[in-house]
Amino acid sequence: MAVKLNKKPVTGMKDILPEEMAIREYVMGIIRSTYAEFGFTQIETPCVESLDNLNCKAGGENEKLIFKIMKRGEKLRLDEAKEENDLADGGLRYDLTVPLVRFYSNHAAELPNPFKALQMGNVWRADRPQRGRYRQFMQCDIDILGDASNLAEIELILATTTTLGRIGFKGFEIRINDRRILKGMAAACGFDEASYDEVFIILDKMDKIGRDGVRSELLDAGYASDSVDKYIGLFEAMEKAEDPVEYAIDSLGDLLDAGVADSFREIISSVRAVGGDHYRLVFDPTLVRGMSYYTGTIFEIAMPEFGGSCGGGGRYDKMVGMFTGQEVPACGFSIGFERIVLLLMESGFKVPGSDAKCAYLIEKGLPSDKLNEALKSAETERADGRQVLVVRMNKNRKFQKEQLTAQGYTEFKEYFCEALK
Amino acid sequence: MAVKLNKKPVTGMKDILPEEMAIREYVMGIIRSTYAEFGFTQIETPCVESLDNLNCKAGGENEKLIFKIMKRGEKLRLDEAKEENDLADGGLRYDLTVPLVRFYSNHAAELPNPFKALQMGNVWRADRPQRGRYRQFMQCDIDILGDASNLAEIELILATTTTLGRIGFKGFEIRINDRRILKGMAAACGFDEASYDEVFIILDKMDKIGRDGVRSELLDAGYASDSVDKYIGLFEAMEKAEDPVEYAIDSLGDLLDAGVADSFREIISSVRAVGGDHYRLVFDPTLVRGMSYYTGTIFEIAMPEFGGSCGGGGRYDKMVGMFTGQEVPACGFSIGFERIVLLLMESGFKVPGSDAKCAYLIEKGLPSDKLNEALKSAETERADGRQVLVVRMNKNRKFQKEQLTAQGYTEFKEYFCEALK
Repeated sequence: MAVKLNKKPVTGMKDILPEEMAIREYVMGIIRSTYAEFGFTQIETPCVESLDNLNCKAGGENEKLIFKIMKRGEKLRLDEAKEENDLADGGLRYDLTVPLVRFYSNHAAELPNPFKALQMGNVWRADRPQRGRYRQFMQCDIDILGDASNLAEIELILATTTTLGRIGFKGFEIRINDRRILKGMAAACGFDEASYDEVFIILDKMDKIGRDGVRSELLDAGYASDSVDKYIGLFEAMEKAEDPVEYAIDSLGDLLDAGVADSFREIISSVRAVGGDHYRLVFDPTLVRGMSYYTGTIFEIAMPEFGGSCGGGGRYDKMVGMFTGQEVPACGFSIGFERIVLLLMESGFKVPGSDAKCAYLIEKGLPSDKLNEALKSAETERADGRQVLVVRMNKNRKFQKEQLTAQGYTEFKEYFCEALK
Repeated sequence: MAVKLNKKPVTGMKDILPEEMAIREYVMGIIRSTYAEFGFTQIETPCVESLDNLNCKAGGENEKLIFKIMKRGEKLRLDEAKEENDLADGGLRYDLTVPLVRFYSNHAAELPNPFKALQMGNVWRADRPQRGRYRQFMQCDIDILGDASNLAEIELILATTTTLGRIGFKGFEIRINDRRILKGMAAACGFDEASYDEVFIILDKMDKIGRDGVRSELLDAGYASDSVDKYIGLFEAMEKAEDPVEYAIDSLGDLLDAGVADSFREIISSVRAVGGDHYRLVFDPTLVRGMSYYTGTIFEIAMPEFGGSCGGGGRYDKMVGMFTGQEVPACGFSIGFERIVLLLMESGFKVPGSDAKCAYLIEKGLPSDKLNEALKSAETERADGRQVLVVRMNKNRKFQKEQLTAQGYTEFKEYFCEALK
């Protein structure tokens, strides 16, 4: 008992106080109800996954970020262990995509086809702690498994933009591209398929370093100046084109399947025709999305209030096959939940209804019959959905009421032992 | 890519399918809104805590159940490690009480006083896997910190029973006792203070083995037959007494503080006067509650549908002091969330509104203008809160509609490429 315990959360993780939690729950409520209206059903997987599964995405990069769970009991053989992974058998999930694909592989027979999943849950990454970035954070993913058609992309984008609109965001952009357009453009300029990954990593910096920066990095990396010039010229021309989508499709010719082109056109035209005017859908040929598992359409949310992405997703048709041997089309959209909460907090957002609460102050020693009267009155108000705090009256009643007012209590009832003279 | 990954969740943990998840979210929604009406605010702590904190409850028993997180990077020294704890620096929390007390110790200055907290979150215990018991499960705790008065107990019991009533439970019991009554009764019969723990472990079996069973186990454990006879006689007399609370208080005399007795009386009378008739509050002098950290009132939910406890709690005034050196009164109630969900699932419970959904079937190749018409109609219905699934029409339309009907889709709209002849 003499030893004092550690009051701080573990390194890189945070406690969530009531004010932030109320905003988080409010946002989660809108996400849940909006996605439900689009036919998504919520699921949950364990926070712990086997290390093999966590390392499946051609690991290396991810593996270093995994919080590993030690084996227990007889399975833990300290004396025989040669390397780290001899001692661990599981890890905390670092995203919701790998667990979803495992879940789907395990339960496909019990699930509707297509299966529209909503997941909200914590993930963990042992990143170097930085301001505003935590090692435990919430992800919010929607995915459609089993739909190869572009209805998946259309519904994902409509559902996500409707959700963001209901939370109160407007004037944002959804940027869209397709990995096949991205690859076609590199091919059209003579880049070798083996070099795509490196080329795209450089292209991905367009936002920050501009066309000239991308050009010189590509040249520095040793690519032929013919290819680099043609590539940069293409992006320049698309930016000037009246219809960049058609320009891109035209310039790719046979390098892009006609069906893929039609499907991409329809995603853009349908979302523009149906979606609200609180956002713009924009074709962005420089959009890369880092994850190597994307196979088709990719998209990203860009908020004016926030430099950088506020969520994104795309089509990943090959991942289910890694679990089952049989490929299943899949497409997902992940909302940057933590960033959205941060933006709301910074804007001074208050959850609706959080300032119409009532507090009953109960003087010490109040006779039981009067106490019961107060409790019954509180019960009646609560049955109508009112928030009622029943609390002991402090000696400094004025200060107590000031404190309560700051918490959103706008009405007070005071119960004294004797009627005030 | 050739290696197939593991489709199953890790040992002892489970995937949650949409049907169960809908029930869980429904229950969580009622819990959130009801406790909010009682002035509780939600908070969250990281799932990972330092090992020191997790072992604070005079460990041993708990320590074996902790999933430990391995150190990372340079801090992991495989060659120098002599024992398990040299390799680990954190663990998954096994309850929400230790994290809450750490949280409160860390943030007391920013929190209202008293602080009424609601926590809903997963905890992990490396128990031997059994049917219906999982290694990751949800706990749902409410706690009041900083209120030494019995208003804390009264509000905790009223809030919890109101919540259970709104979920649909009736005919259950809240059993109540006080550790000080429990100890007083042992003292009154001549048991030595050092033997209380063992005596209470035996007494706790009263439900299962009856008075005779408790008597013979106490005798087998070597306690004086005088004490054992007196002890058993006391429980017998209380059961027959018209008012068991007054009988217990009378028989304890000076062994029970008069203030404690008055406070206990008032908790019972107020809850009975104010609470609904969907449950009974019952004094149970044999109620022990295992946790050694309880210091005063203890209570438990007993459901007729369910052998055993469906939640419980009590007063634990000494725990905050372990973190800060300064004691803060505290009282909490934990709902057996997983058991409640299990009871609802077994009773065939359906979430209200889950069977009034509409599905739009879109034939393959539908022209974009007709597709947009369908999407706009869906948008309008969704804006009214209706659940609308927009999905590709299968070749076997009849089977598809049967499947959708089973999922709660009661209305269909079909969009064909050409008007039906």
